[in-house]
Amino acid sequence: MQTNEEQTPGYGADMHCERAAGYIRKCCGKEDAAIHFLVGGTQANLTVIGALLKPYQGVISSEWGHIEEHETGAIEATGHKVLILPGTDGKISAAQVEDLCRDHAHDENHEHRVQPGMVYISHPTENGTLYTKRELKEMARVCRKWGIPLYMDGARLGYGLAVTAAAEERQEDWPSLPDIADLCDLFYIGGTKVGAMFGEALVITNKAYQEDFRYHIKQRGALLAKGRMLGIQFEVLFEDGLYVETASHAVAMADLIRQACVQRGYSFLYETVANQIFPIFPERVIRELQRNYVFFVRTRTGEVKGEPHAAVRICTSWATTEANARQLAADILST
Amino acid sequence: MQTNEEQTPGYGADMHCERAAGYIRKCCGKEDAAIHFLVGGTQANLTVIGALLKPYQGVISSEWGHIEEHETGAIEATGHKVLILPGTDGKISAAQVEDLCRDHAHDENHEHRVQPGMVYISHPTENGTLYTKRELKEMARVCRKWGIPLYMDGARLGYGLAVTAAAEERQEDWPSLPDIADLCDLFYIGGTKVGAMFGEALVITNKAYQEDFRYHIKQRGALLAKGRMLGIQFEVLFEDGLYVETASHAVAMADLIRQACVQRGYSFLYETVANQIFPIFPERVIRELQRNYVFFVRTRTGEVKGEPHAAVRICTSWATTEANARQLAADILST
Amino acid sequence: MQTNEEQTPGYGADMHCERAAGYIRKCCGKEDAAIHFLVGGTQANLTVIGALLKPYQGVISSEWGHIEEHETGAIEATGHKVLILPGTDGKISAAQVEDLCRDHAHDENHEHRVQPGMVYISHPTENGTLYTKRELKEMARVCRKWGIPLYMDGARLGYGLAVTAAAEERQEDWPSLPDIADLCDLFYIGGTKVGAMFGEALVITNKAYQEDFRYHIKQRGALLAKGRMLGIQFEVLFEDGLYVETASHAVAMADLIRQACVQRGYSFLYETVANQIFPIFPERVIRELQRNYVFFVRTRTGEVKGEPHAAVRICTSWATTEANARQLAADILST
Amino acid sequence: MQTNEEQTPGYGADMHCERAAGYIRKCCGKEDAAIHFLVGGTQANLTVIGALLKPYQGVISSEWGHIEEHETGAIEATGHKVLILPGTDGKISAAQVEDLCRDHAHDENHEHRVQPGMVYISHPTENGTLYTKRELKEMARVCRKWGIPLYMDGARLGYGLAVTAAAEERQEDWPSLPDIADLCDLFYIGGTKVGAMFGEALVITNKAYQEDFRYHIKQRGALLAKGRMLGIQFEVLFEDGLYVETASHAVAMADLIRQACVQRGYSFLYETVANQIFPIFPERVIRELQRNYVFFVRTRTGEVKGEPHAAVRICTSWATTEANARQLAADILST
Repeated sequence: MQTNEEQTPGYGADMHCERAAGYIRKCCGKEDAAIHFLVGGTQANLTVIGALLKPYQGVISSEWGHIEEHETGAIEATGHKVLILPGTDGKISAAQVEDLCRDHAHDENHEHRVQPGMVYISHPTENGTLYTKRELKEMARVCRKWGIPLYMDGARLGYGLAVTAAAEERQEDWPSLPDIADLCDLFYIGGTKVGAMFGEALVITNKAYQEDFRYHIKQRGALLAKGRMLGIQFEVLFEDGLYVETASHAVAMADLIRQACVQRGYSFLYETVANQIFPIFPERVIRELQRNYVFFVRTRTGEVKGEPHAAVRICTSWATTEANARQLAADILST
Repeated sequence: MQTNEEQTPGYGADMHCERAAGYIRKCCGKEDAAIHFLVGGTQANLTVIGALLKPYQGVISSEWGHIEEHETGAIEATGHKVLILPGTDGKISAAQVEDLCRDHAHDENHEHRVQPGMVYISHPTENGTLYTKRELKEMARVCRKWGIPLYMDGARLGYGLAVTAAAEERQEDWPSLPDIADLCDLFYIGGTKVGAMFGEALVITNKAYQEDFRYHIKQRGALLAKGRMLGIQFEVLFEDGLYVETASHAVAMADLIRQACVQRGYSFLYETVANQIFPIFPERVIRELQRNYVFFVRTRTGEVKGEPHAAVRICTSWATTEANARQLAADILST
Repeated sequence: MQTNEEQTPGYGADMHCERAAGYIRKCCGKEDAAIHFLVGGTQANLTVIGALLKPYQGVISSEWGHIEEHETGAIEATGHKVLILPGTDGKISAAQVEDLCRDHAHDENHEHRVQPGMVYISHPTENGTLYTKRELKEMARVCRKWGIPLYMDGARLGYGLAVTAAAEERQEDWPSLPDIADLCDLFYIGGTKVGAMFGEALVITNKAYQEDFRYHIKQRGALLAKGRMLGIQFEVLFEDGLYVETASHAVAMADLIRQACVQRGYSFLYETVANQIFPIFPERVIRELQRNYVFFVRTRTGEVKGEPHAAVRICTSWATTEANARQLAADILST
Repeated sequence: MQTNEEQTPGYGADMHCERAAGYIRKCCGKEDAAIHFLVGGTQANLTVIGALLKPYQGVISSEWGHIEEHETGAIEATGHKVLILPGTDGKISAAQVEDLCRDHAHDENHEHRVQPGMVYISHPTENGTLYTKRELKEMARVCRKWGIPLYMDGARLGYGLAVTAAAEERQEDWPSLPDIADLCDLFYIGGTKVGAMFGEALVITNKAYQEDFRYHIKQRGALLAKGRMLGIQFEVLFEDGLYVETASHAVAMADLIRQACVQRGYSFLYETVANQIFPIFPERVIRELQRNYVFFVRTRTGEVKGEPHAAVRICTSWATTEANARQLAADILST
């Protein structure tokens, strides 16, 4: 509201966007990164992938990748195949990418097959898991070996960075924002899922992909006219660490719930550390909890001692109150 | 800010969007229209045109159409040609459309040419002109005759409706919102250029084009996650007439400036009635005015009595104060 | 050569194409089928699939489907996802399609996922297997239930029809050409792989997909200027049964080789009945045979009694001489 | 027929294609040119243009260009806009291209407009006209200045080269095949319209565009399985000069007819020198001639001395006999 009367240039050329970009560059430790603000995640993914791939190339992704499963074919609508790799937890490994690229290159009919042209990972993944710094390094090495860019979908990046921040003392091996900026050719910092009204900040660290990028954004209908609406949000989120702070709250709330599950003896579909947890409950417990809480049932996991079980997805955010989290933890403990 | 703590479903399924859609349906006099809220105009255009056309069809547009000139090939990126018609003022006529369709149908090689599949008009046009109700009726008749939808880009629709509202007593022939809803198969009501932070409300009145439309929106990256941000704005704009009220202010401000031009004896590049005016000034006057005002020089128009002249584009908005408008009018009178 | 001096209209409007279409309609028992002649299989697939799908729809295929594996992303380049189903032998089942369609329809986020819009099968498949008439009927039933077209890639159709013809007395359950024309909405009869220099005859039996189809062909660069080159070939192939006759020879040659494998005690990767066979040989035998024959090694299948084995792909054609086939059979028997 | 029993590798990797490519390279004076054989002209155009342009770029063409008028939006279906330049004779000038590129670069909203990314010319043009060597040089200079490739559609190239060959003694300024190979980044040598059954030979002289080109061909469905069918034709056409010889016959036949028109006092819609002529006849004469000849009426040109006139298109080919040409000439003289 404070900026409504400001007269600013449109299309992201205003002071708020400029300042926000400056803060982000600083947090990334990349003074020459190009920063663009887009409205949403699918929009960012289709714009980036459509921009970087040659017509005959596809993008490598986990079978759980958002671009594979939940974007209504947005990537294919830009003309490109998603080359999927299997894996239960939403992550793909450098070894899988290496195999796929080598297999393609050695096929004598390689011209009849889509050429791998890019690696897409999400961090945290759709299944709530995180790449370690070591895994990310190895992925970057393989990508550089094959000459293809590494792109990270950071729709939930804040929650990953919150884990990294919390783990500093514990000497765990999670990647920081400068690590990510070093290892990925480009990535986006998600606002929509981490406290913003909307907005994703695309960071292009590899200069080879910076040229003329605004053309791509405009062509995909992704250039917000009153761009300052995006700039203002990221300015606030990145000026003083609010982004990670907000996410840390959500991760702490998830931890409360996770610990209750562990204490009560429930196991998990995926081992997660950020703001998503996938506990396996008896179906009777699920029905009970759903009276008061909204969550998805992810997968039926079979019977344990004659009782049907299923994994559910519980997700916290900046808006999750401690009172609510504690209540849910207590409710889980009393099942 | 009042809604930040509300817990709502995402993707436009919230109460704000529902209420906003209800208000718009009522204003249109179309209880069964489908309403979708999108973020921006290029996004709306590419989603609609990509959705409605068959692969071998193109969209008919004025050579001045936004889709032809200012969307970085967004329409072609969905696979479709823009079939342009000439005209100085940004409007196209029903007779032009009739000729193009008949010429195509009678060409024995018609299968080698793009089939006209849709008519795109903007109202007000990019050149500030308006279709009369009679012109719009005639266009709708030709479109129905050839079985192709009529789509109106209403990025500036509020300013057109403001003219219609003001003209009611003068018995002029401008189309009202119910007229537009009757005559067009679909159109969008622009928020971005008429006081909203962002957002366009797509109104699909023809049921043939309503099915599965959300798939198109999602695929184009145009489905806003926190859809209530769009709903809230249109709720406010359409609950009590704020939309036309806001636009009427801008039109009144343009009228002040227009009258000053007329009084001072300046002519115009296009005869406009809404919030854009295109007066022709001596270049010396332009340089003088540009010391205090920001506007585009549109076209050099040659010399008058040895002095070079050019047409400029002056545009008012909800944020134009009466003081500023009066000052500009005075400055024009004193040139 | 006999037609080189003929003056004919271009683009498939000549007498040869007309006659060829007439013969094909008669063989299919479909007097109102639309027939189009295209140059190659990938071209036919991308033209058909790009034509029939709505932008947000994908095509269901086996993971072994030619469109999935060997067309360099041609389908995705028209904007559509290939929705793959697993299976070892290249076939997909009606039950799989039913499950996929039901799963999609029941997903509350279905608008975020690609809608299944078409079923693609090949017959014979890329793995040399055939659909029974019963399987094809069941697939057609499921497709009609869900309102999506069934499309058959008949690149090798002749070899399937040769099996059907040979099996008539044996009362086996293979589909005839009229069966296929009844059950599929559209399919193509492969010329390139069955004796022609090039060319595929697309048969559209469902009238809903016949309109304006030549526009699609032209847009994809698939409308041969001197169309009579295609017409002549299919005229000859379908006037007197030469198509199935040619294919029957290839199938008989494959049978000779298959019997030798059986007699010698070799097993097969897939159970095939047409012109492709996939016997599993000791790798030592493969090296021996490759001195005189050209064939692909398909899959290493592990060790048997300490000796590494692999499946190979042996393929016969109209040009395979009986002498050569008998020689290979003898060579296999003497391993 | 002589090659039907040959066993060759598929997809253009055979000896005929290799030899044909060698002959073409030699005729072009470009030992390192990449040569690919495609089936048709629209296919060549959409494959080349889709391959070279970045997503936000368009291709510059005359308003008469084949890609603009007669390919059913094939270029737009690959995602790209055709940026048209006006001109009556089908040619565009280097000055026009310079202006368009400069205008784009200097527009402060250039990111909202399609970036010019390629120049497409045809030689001879659709209107039968030819570029002079000087014009072609100037065009190449402007293209290099702006960093965009120059692509020549040579569907009728033989007829242009026939004019060049005939003009050698007359010291006229038409470009030779080596000139074209020097000045264009890539071009195709048309077979379909110059005596072949089908086939176009794409010559990529600029190494920057050679990499991975076969992927593009396969993806567009343009990789002929039995590629030797293309190789054989170009082998014969380019081994001993048959290509230009064939075309020269057609040009000589057109000259006979052209001279008759001149002698009888008829004028022309376009001044042409190759195998197309566009004489302007009284409509009465047209009706008379159409009793015995097939040709298009191009444009009504108004009345001369009260009699309505129109321009027609007369086109000769390798198959035009001298007897027929002389008869037409005589018939024109006796009108």
